[in-house]
Amino acid sequence: MDLKKILEDVKNNNIDIEYALDKLKNLPYEDLGYANIDHHRQLRNGYPEVIYCEGKSDEQILGIIEKMKEKDSNILGTRCRKETFDKIKKIYNNAEYEELSKILKIKNHDIVNIGKGKILVLTGGTSDIPVADEAYYTAKFLGNDVERIYDVGVAGIHRLLSRRHILEEARVIVAVAGMEGALPSVVGGLVDVPIIAVPTSVGYGANFGGVSALLTMLNSCASGISVVNIDNGFGAGYLAATINKLK
Amino acid sequence: MDLKKILEDVKNNNIDIEYALDKLKNLPYEDLGYANIDHHRQLRNGYPEVIYCEGKSDEQILGIIEKMKEKDSNILGTRCRKETFDKIKKIYNNAEYEELSKILKIKNHDIVNIGKGKILVLTGGTSDIPVADEAYYTAKFLGNDVERIYDVGVAGIHRLLSRRHILEEARVIVAVAGMEGALPSVVGGLVDVPIIAVPTSVGYGANFGGVSALLTMLNSCASGISVVNIDNGFGAGYLAATINKLK
Amino acid sequence: MDLKKILEDVKNNNIDIEYALDKLKNLPYEDLGYANIDHHRQLRNGYPEVIYCEGKSDEQILGIIEKMKEKDSNILGTRCRKETFDKIKKIYNNAEYEELSKILKIKNHDIVNIGKGKILVLTGGTSDIPVADEAYYTAKFLGNDVERIYDVGVAGIHRLLSRRHILEEARVIVAVAGMEGALPSVVGGLVDVPIIAVPTSVGYGANFGGVSALLTMLNSCASGISVVNIDNGFGAGYLAATINKLK
Amino acid sequence: MDLKKILEDVKNNNIDIEYALDKLKNLPYEDLGYANIDHHRQLRNGYPEVIYCEGKSDEQILGIIEKMKEKDSNILGTRCRKETFDKIKKIYNNAEYEELSKILKIKNHDIVNIGKGKILVLTGGTSDIPVADEAYYTAKFLGNDVERIYDVGVAGIHRLLSRRHILEEARVIVAVAGMEGALPSVVGGLVDVPIIAVPTSVGYGANFGGVSALLTMLNSCASGISVVNIDNGFGAGYLAATINKLK
Amino acid sequence: MDLKKILEDVKNNNIDIEYALDKLKNLPYEDLGYANIDHHRQLRNGYPEVIYCEGKSDEQILGIIEKMKEKDSNILGTRCRKETFDKIKKIYNNAEYEELSKILKIKNHDIVNIGKGKILVLTGGTSDIPVADEAYYTAKFLGNDVERIYDVGVAGIHRLLSRRHILEEARVIVAVAGMEGALPSVVGGLVDVPIIAVPTSVGYGANFGGVSALLTMLNSCASGISVVNIDNGFGAGYLAATINKLK
Amino acid sequence: MDLKKILEDVKNNNIDIEYALDKLKNLPYEDLGYANIDHHRQLRNGYPEVIYCEGKSDEQILGIIEKMKEKDSNILGTRCRKETFDKIKKIYNNAEYEELSKILKIKNHDIVNIGKGKILVLTGGTSDIPVADEAYYTAKFLGNDVERIYDVGVAGIHRLLSRRHILEEARVIVAVAGMEGALPSVVGGLVDVPIIAVPTSVGYGANFGGVSALLTMLNSCASGISVVNIDNGFGAGYLAATINKLK
Amino acid sequence: MDLKKILEDVKNNNIDIEYALDKLKNLPYEDLGYANIDHHRQLRNGYPEVIYCEGKSDEQILGIIEKMKEKDSNILGTRCRKETFDKIKKIYNNAEYEELSKILKIKNHDIVNIGKGKILVLTGGTSDIPVADEAYYTAKFLGNDVERIYDVGVAGIHRLLSRRHILEEARVIVAVAGMEGALPSVVGGLVDVPIIAVPTSVGYGANFGGVSALLTMLNSCASGISVVNIDNGFGAGYLAATINKLK
Amino acid sequence: MDLKKILEDVKNNNIDIEYALDKLKNLPYEDLGYANIDHHRQLRNGYPEVIYCEGKSDEQILGIIEKMKEKDSNILGTRCRKETFDKIKKIYNNAEYEELSKILKIKNHDIVNIGKGKILVLTGGTSDIPVADEAYYTAKFLGNDVERIYDVGVAGIHRLLSRRHILEEARVIVAVAGMEGALPSVVGGLVDVPIIAVPTSVGYGANFGGVSALLTMLNSCASGISVVNIDNGFGAGYLAATINKLK
Repeated sequence: MDLKKILEDVKNNNIDIEYALDKLKNLPYEDLGYANIDHHRQLRNGYPEVIYCEGKSDEQILGIIEKMKEKDSNILGTRCRKETFDKIKKIYNNAEYEELSKILKIKNHDIVNIGKGKILVLTGGTSDIPVADEAYYTAKFLGNDVERIYDVGVAGIHRLLSRRHILEEARVIVAVAGMEGALPSVVGGLVDVPIIAVPTSVGYGANFGGVSALLTMLNSCASGISVVNIDNGFGAGYLAATINKLK
Repeated sequence: MDLKKILEDVKNNNIDIEYALDKLKNLPYEDLGYANIDHHRQLRNGYPEVIYCEGKSDEQILGIIEKMKEKDSNILGTRCRKETFDKIKKIYNNAEYEELSKILKIKNHDIVNIGKGKILVLTGGTSDIPVADEAYYTAKFLGNDVERIYDVGVAGIHRLLSRRHILEEARVIVAVAGMEGALPSVVGGLVDVPIIAVPTSVGYGANFGGVSALLTMLNSCASGISVVNIDNGFGAGYLAATINKLK
Repeated sequence: MDLKKILEDVKNNNIDIEYALDKLKNLPYEDLGYANIDHHRQLRNGYPEVIYCEGKSDEQILGIIEKMKEKDSNILGTRCRKETFDKIKKIYNNAEYEELSKILKIKNHDIVNIGKGKILVLTGGTSDIPVADEAYYTAKFLGNDVERIYDVGVAGIHRLLSRRHILEEARVIVAVAGMEGALPSVVGGLVDVPIIAVPTSVGYGANFGGVSALLTMLNSCASGISVVNIDNGFGAGYLAATINKLK
Repeated sequence: MDLKKILEDVKNNNIDIEYALDKLKNLPYEDLGYANIDHHRQLRNGYPEVIYCEGKSDEQILGIIEKMKEKDSNILGTRCRKETFDKIKKIYNNAEYEELSKILKIKNHDIVNIGKGKILVLTGGTSDIPVADEAYYTAKFLGNDVERIYDVGVAGIHRLLSRRHILEEARVIVAVAGMEGALPSVVGGLVDVPIIAVPTSVGYGANFGGVSALLTMLNSCASGISVVNIDNGFGAGYLAATINKLK
Repeated sequence: MDLKKILEDVKNNNIDIEYALDKLKNLPYEDLGYANIDHHRQLRNGYPEVIYCEGKSDEQILGIIEKMKEKDSNILGTRCRKETFDKIKKIYNNAEYEELSKILKIKNHDIVNIGKGKILVLTGGTSDIPVADEAYYTAKFLGNDVERIYDVGVAGIHRLLSRRHILEEARVIVAVAGMEGALPSVVGGLVDVPIIAVPTSVGYGANFGGVSALLTMLNSCASGISVVNIDNGFGAGYLAATINKLK
Repeated sequence: MDLKKILEDVKNNNIDIEYALDKLKNLPYEDLGYANIDHHRQLRNGYPEVIYCEGKSDEQILGIIEKMKEKDSNILGTRCRKETFDKIKKIYNNAEYEELSKILKIKNHDIVNIGKGKILVLTGGTSDIPVADEAYYTAKFLGNDVERIYDVGVAGIHRLLSRRHILEEARVIVAVAGMEGALPSVVGGLVDVPIIAVPTSVGYGANFGGVSALLTMLNSCASGISVVNIDNGFGAGYLAATINKLK
Repeated sequence: MDLKKILEDVKNNNIDIEYALDKLKNLPYEDLGYANIDHHRQLRNGYPEVIYCEGKSDEQILGIIEKMKEKDSNILGTRCRKETFDKIKKIYNNAEYEELSKILKIKNHDIVNIGKGKILVLTGGTSDIPVADEAYYTAKFLGNDVERIYDVGVAGIHRLLSRRHILEEARVIVAVAGMEGALPSVVGGLVDVPIIAVPTSVGYGANFGGVSALLTMLNSCASGISVVNIDNGFGAGYLAATINKLK
Repeated sequence: MDLKKILEDVKNNNIDIEYALDKLKNLPYEDLGYANIDHHRQLRNGYPEVIYCEGKSDEQILGIIEKMKEKDSNILGTRCRKETFDKIKKIYNNAEYEELSKILKIKNHDIVNIGKGKILVLTGGTSDIPVADEAYYTAKFLGNDVERIYDVGVAGIHRLLSRRHILEEARVIVAVAGMEGALPSVVGGLVDVPIIAVPTSVGYGANFGGVSALLTMLNSCASGISVVNIDNGFGAGYLAATINKLK
């Protein structure tokens, strides 16, 4: 390894210090150990590798899985087509699939629960479930206790209010909603924990593929709310896990 | 009057029928009585004339008021500058002004209550009050029993829920909200009367001058809701009055 | 029932008042009777259950119908695919279908007419008919006398003017239009009843999927007009019914 | 003059043909007479020079006028500030000013009427007048018989219908409207001449500075309509004149 | 006929004048002859009926054609699917079809040339041809001498300049362009006739389905230009014909 | 208190259980104890009351402060004008003001540090500081250890990299950036804690008042990032505090 | 040739100079040699002809190739469908195809390297490769030494930093990125050469088909960056070549 | 210096190699010499420091200048207010100011011409000059031979064509245009050098603050064009200089 070699040369008086200084400044970053950054996250016990499958061919996905398997880590695939999963299943017997959310899971060892509390995933309507489930399975696979309550949109507010005790038990809440997207605002007025708002593209006409819900959430009067991209269930689940493992 | 003249000429054989037919077809509309259309609305007892003051000079507004006074009807002015009102007041002693909503009122005779029930005006926040008051004073001036409950936005849902009995007594509800604009959706889930949603330009950043609230309201999952233009308190008050006078 | 039990325990001195107070405050909402809210609407004689079919699988829709049938209420389905209807028809012999508007109707008992007057549905062009029919069948199914006049757009104004007597007989008007969407403005200048404007996505180029018609309607100079979402025929029909049943 | 010189040199055998050919190909355009293009328009008897004053300093405008005066042509200034006009008036005694439309006119000789028929300028409301007047004075200054009828918007359709005989006498119609901008569509259904639609920025909220009217006009179902930029009264007046002088 | 009957009754003293006045005011418009308005355009010799085929079923189109045939006028269909044409052709032997522009033509008698000059149709690129051809065939079918020059976009300005003499011969120019849409501006600087600019949806990325070309054309610095909707070749052809038949 | 009274009446057999049940269901929410919800947050030791000063008059703000003072809680004002502060300072001697971020602070007792770790606030440029400071002072006032590093935007990436050890010590990071808004993405690739991205309206042209930065942040490829509204420093600081007090 | 003929006629006194002058001014441009402009680019040794295949039929493309072959130049086709290539390959044996970027290449003689330095093509992610490859193969075919480094997005900044020495060797850099599109900004802070930023439509939700990346790049704080259209790999490659051949 | 100290300790056997390795990996970047990156650009002889003055107070700007003066480099300020310059001038006698473009220049030593060829700056209209001048003075101050030709927009194409020989002499062209923004497309068809297109916010209505010109430029059919942000004259000038100093 280059860096070590330089130090040894200095120690052994093979090179002088000025020359060593100059060399150090011009070393590519990876030689200084920065290349380790990228692998940091996966080094934790049980933390999975993640593959965003959309726009990748079956061959590419299988290739990536094969490479990951060498490290023996768990694997989480998002937006994985059913046909792709069928091919994977033939090779990797322990592969599992969640149809609604298109989540692929390959568990090579047990998931260690590293979350400090409970993550709660809510949806406004039943059509928001695919996005919500992406958050749900992501957070579970990252080692969290996750609960989901679906179809508690604000147009029937009692549905949400009657679950207030469950809301109050959560450490982080993921609130998924399309159309008018007002769910996070109401939840934010009821509890005092971080709320991750996920707009969905559910709706038609002036919802503009989720923009209406996105704007609603960004403009929420309630405090403690932040927003991820439209339909980004994975991002919400990942962030919820990141918050929930804070000591 | 032309039309009468033609008929008299026919009666008196001064002109023949073919000639009369031809003339009738080419008469300007007003001579056929269609010009009455425009005055229909004001013909009802106590119904006011309306002046949209924005973009009109003080002189123009005073001129219009003078002309209207001839008919001795009540006069409602919207978006009237304070300075303009001061000039009006000097001439028309009975002129009144609502500062927040910039409403001008000149009552030349008593307002007859023609509404069948109560109109309720709600706001999400205190900054929505100018728009809400425009709806409130418009509906009142058009002869309605109007009640207002302000600052009952969805981020503190109990504020709204604790007034549910008032909501249920209304015949029409005007729900005014800026920022995320979710108020009408929640109200729509609680009661079963027509709800007129008014988005306001209150907010900043990604509220885009009221577009966020507008989209929220158009995409509401609750039924019985329709929307007027951003900040259009007058339109909401007028429509509420139109609904409330239905027999 | 919990709430009753608490009161009986108080009456029988099984628990003291402080303890009862505490319990009451922590009861889930539904136990306090609030769960009734949601069923309110359907409790009226003849009022239908509504299913928004888009984005639901045939199995899900059949499951919901089965559950609803237990209550023996009428059922209205919107945006129902023809193939779905065919499956439903095999099980529910009394199911009916409107192809243009994709409306599903299952009448388990007669529709009671609860509207106070006539609802009129207008369109600007023939391509707006699917959306207009959604409003038409919705309002009819909710117990209203509904009339429709189609293809009376403003580019041939005489078509509209020659029906002015019909316009004047309506208690509520639903005006459906795509492209430039000017129909509601003209109608609003002719009559003095509530007008529900429905923009449609009909058109091409700079109509932006209905945005042009939506903006036209929101900016109407005529009074008494409010707007629902693009292509939201159901919402317009439902709101028309809500207004028309006002006593 | 260069071109002539080359030809003379060829004629006089001072240069050979190949050399002349090469030179001709490399001459700047103006030397070939193309520089005349730009002055074409002004060469007609009475046709004015035009100055778009917005964004130009008083000094610049005065400089341009001075230069133009040399050609002794009439001068039309658009979007000219009142203060600028006051300075111009001191120097050019025959300068005139239209306050509403901010039109500056310097007539150095009589305007010759070159239009073949009458141009009609309409507005939907009174706030559209500044833009309409810009079209009106432009077309007049370009030598046309122009008539204006203002405040005949579609929300009071009888106002327009009662002038139908005037509409039918026009050779070109300029229809100016803000807010919902539906005027050109209705006019287009009544007459069969070219209609130039001018959206204005008049309105508030979801009119987005004139975009609502612009989209309405672009999406008109009526035939024979085309659109210019928001508030572009000059462009409409100029185009109307261009059409009206067609033989 | 009602109107005649009333006049006869007046003449014969069967009814008095007040009663007649009242009746006249309440007659439906068509009885006063206004229903003729709509048929005005087709009454001219050879002027075709027009069917906008998009969004209409084959059955609907065939039905409309059958009805039109009774009047024995020529028929122009726009955006007609090839399959639809094939069905039409089986019934109407004289039906013709232009594949690129999807124009249907049924000539029941000769087209009389009513245009006063030549209409010129230009495109920026070859992909704009379908829209340009829609304008071309529309204008021809409406009785005009039309010429087309395609692929003369501004990125190779000499292609346009070398045809300047042809440009100068036209009475009206239709300039069709996608992508940056600058063609009308350059043409507008070269000639002094009305230019109808047609933005097309040709392009990708930030062309936003034709919005880039639309905005370019609306903001043109050249005078004498107006714009129709994106891809609206028919509208441009129709307007060109309307201008070209001005006497 | 009503609820207690009902229970006592039940106990004393003054009213029967059915009557009591009916009454309970119709009690306003606050009587059932739900009115406490709103005050929950402030009940914690040292947690401040918050006033959003924008759009409120000096009188209104002073009125609110006076009312809050009764509870003796600390007070945080956001977007407070300098002139308003000057008036407040005259009455409340302990009022403090941060000019850049327009933060008003009235400390009536010591702030108790309730955050579990350190919050780090970063900005891309110096112009983002007002927004960042709003986050900084909010989080501090809510009882947190907060550090700020400003002007470490991605166009000079070494500025950020050289502080990596500080980044790694933070428990929550607030990343504030205008223009291209790429800062959170880069930070998200370096550390594994929750990142709250705040787009600012800093920039010009195609930044569209902060939309460019907003979209960048919503589309970040890095995990663990969520976004608040444009310029919403308060929201970011509040959310950071909410996360940081999680046990 | 006309021009020569005129000169000869002048020389031979067949026509007088005034007549010649007049004729010259009215000659079509091409006769003056301007028609050469268009062929300039291809006249260089080895410079290819370019066909944009999208929206052209196989027949059209084959026709164009046949015509180009006459000039014996190399041919580059962009956005060429695989099926089209298969047909071409049958006729032109030396045709080659790059599947990812859909680039067609027909080399009729060797490519001469005319670039002065190295062009470097970078991508943020693997999904950006098709666009990046379009730039890569375009620049190579235009005679450049091109290197590509893919998947070095800013969310894992060390991947980019560790290649800094390669970045510093490039004369021009093409930086291709979708989603948040921050790559060019970071690269712009590291090196001091022209950077051509290419936004891609890769992503979902609020990326709006590449608009998010486009805005990021336009708003970059780094200097030396300019932007081409979304997904316009060809344009970037062509511009890189244009810069790289500067002497 | 830390790094040197570590190496000396290694050399002197004060620390062992493993310990040194660990320390090196955790050193802040600047200690490794990366902090030099930022100053690279200014190290070249005569290259100026740049201050973006917008949004900075006079005090801040004076402070920055004072600090920069220590390095004795030239200083370029952009978007500098006249009032700010007046204060600077009092302290720095050699300060110069360009009023139209708001450029501040402090020349502490001569500008060395490092450009290899000529940079040409063009504008479409006279209102684009402030932006164009920003590019012009920036490029000059960075050591380039720059020429400007203003008001050669495409609506009068001969103005541009007659300068073709000047266009062909440029090594880089900056084309500045507002309104329809078509200038770069036409220039791109005439010459074969890199063209930097600068959209300006000049115009009104549907130019949307420069968006129309921006889209036109992004969608240009001509090759060799790239675009910078709206009104970003500095960016264009800087990029032109970056290209022009390529050897």
